[in-house]
Amino acid sequence: MDILESLPAAVRDDRPGTYDNAPIGIFDSGYGGLTVMREVMAALPEEDIIYVGDSARCPYGPRDLAEVRGFVRQICRVLVDRGCKLIVIACNTATAAGLEQAQREFSVPVIGVVEPGARAAAMTTRNRRVGVVATRATIDSNAYADAIRHIDAGITVFSTAAPRFVEIAELGIRMAEGPFESYLSEASKVYIRPEFEAIAREYLEPLRRCAIDTLVLGCTHYPLLKALIGGVVGREVTLISSAEETTRDVAEILRRRHGLARPGNVAAYEFYTTGADVAEFAQFGSRVLNMDMTRAAQLALPPVG
Amino acid sequence: MDILESLPAAVRDDRPGTYDNAPIGIFDSGYGGLTVMREVMAALPEEDIIYVGDSARCPYGPRDLAEVRGFVRQICRVLVDRGCKLIVIACNTATAAGLEQAQREFSVPVIGVVEPGARAAAMTTRNRRVGVVATRATIDSNAYADAIRHIDAGITVFSTAAPRFVEIAELGIRMAEGPFESYLSEASKVYIRPEFEAIAREYLEPLRRCAIDTLVLGCTHYPLLKALIGGVVGREVTLISSAEETTRDVAEILRRRHGLARPGNVAAYEFYTTGADVAEFAQFGSRVLNMDMTRAAQLALPPVG
Repeated sequence: MDILESLPAAVRDDRPGTYDNAPIGIFDSGYGGLTVMREVMAALPEEDIIYVGDSARCPYGPRDLAEVRGFVRQICRVLVDRGCKLIVIACNTATAAGLEQAQREFSVPVIGVVEPGARAAAMTTRNRRVGVVATRATIDSNAYADAIRHIDAGITVFSTAAPRFVEIAELGIRMAEGPFESYLSEASKVYIRPEFEAIAREYLEPLRRCAIDTLVLGCTHYPLLKALIGGVVGREVTLISSAEETTRDVAEILRRRHGLARPGNVAAYEFYTTGADVAEFAQFGSRVLNMDMTRAAQLALPPVG
Repeated sequence: MDILESLPAAVRDDRPGTYDNAPIGIFDSGYGGLTVMREVMAALPEEDIIYVGDSARCPYGPRDLAEVRGFVRQICRVLVDRGCKLIVIACNTATAAGLEQAQREFSVPVIGVVEPGARAAAMTTRNRRVGVVATRATIDSNAYADAIRHIDAGITVFSTAAPRFVEIAELGIRMAEGPFESYLSEASKVYIRPEFEAIAREYLEPLRRCAIDTLVLGCTHYPLLKALIGGVVGREVTLISSAEETTRDVAEILRRRHGLARPGNVAAYEFYTTGADVAEFAQFGSRVLNMDMTRAAQLALPPVG
């Protein structure tokens, strides 16, 4: 029998003018992926989103890649079973460890955060000198340098690890909850202590001296530190937020596949943490997201083994 | 002082307001790249463009890759020396042979036609079954299959060579100059003889039976045959034109780099052929481009060796 006839009709359906109100799934080892969710919410305000933060096993960075790959499969399975039409692995370590396998295993599109950020950087640089700042694990994986040079072999990539940026971002958010709140602009709910600036200078000064004109924020936490990082590297350096660029890809994939939510859909958001402390997850997450996480719940995952 | 207060408000200002009126360079072994130029003219009507058709050494397909790499270097050098701000290698064989080296060698961005088409296909497919139709040399290089699976490892790629499509496209254009002109729609200046359809069916029927939902036109000549190819594969298959997708990348690169022409610039076009018969190049090229090539001239290139 002809394979075309043997397939269900919906498999071949690509008619324009169709919509898909299924949710987008986004996950991270913790809170960082919420910067991606924030961008997706802003760009696609009619899309339902399910967010999973794997707080119980956070951080992924120090773990074995095969172990992280198991986590990625497990969480993608949860999101697919809940009907997600597209999954964003909003974590660099998880992207490096498990993107390819997840793409092979699941029938919905699975995208990571590395490729969109790398492509944007390659398109943006004028002097073809691009910096990447990320966690130690991401820098050691060479994921961004490889992806950028795959797009444009003529670009020189300068990488630097900023091990304390995640801590600074989260500390800055916690401090911003208190007496410092009034110092903050609406866009940023992160309080930057003066010593944070010294730390940022130490990390970024070598990149600045390399005369980069474009800097990739290679960790989903870092958009929270955009003002700090931008202030240190100077306005002549264009910052690339993987969160923003990944969102552009999400929008384009859904648009091309006729898979956007029906216009007028009132978006519903669900938040899950694998950790025990849902209240803490919701309270802290709400600061990162700049929106109350009213529907946060625990997601119990069995050990991967 | 708090760093937030010390920063100018527009610290991550994208520095809009700078422009670059330098031309875009586009080249191909012959006429196919004119389909890319046509898209660029439509999308970016204020951009100057220099087109080079290497008619004297056309086709590139049967040649040794190292030899083609030499041609790519030589023509990129000409375009850079004439001040081009960006170069499009609008030919699959030349992209496969020389893109990476040209990116390393020249300081302006050099882009090929494979990556943009592959990315669009990966973003478009719903059933994750993508077809590629191209020349024998391009299919044998696996360039599209590799690029698509690099973006999404879960996609199955079905490839087929259509050795006679270039000949059909050029023959269809020549015939359209004559008594068949009145049969043609405004969009297509290509006359499709009934036997062309039989040839297209023979090439494309195997892809159709593989239940692809997306088909990459992997040769810059093929957009001229869009109506023919689309009619054979059916409307449930989305056609991806590398010419269109490459143009999207050209626009995005120039926009991100603040390298677009100043609004209001009256675009100038220059056309060069390496062949001896400038009149034939201008006459035939005008049909492909759907615009009179008023400024066609010969470009004498020394032998590469």
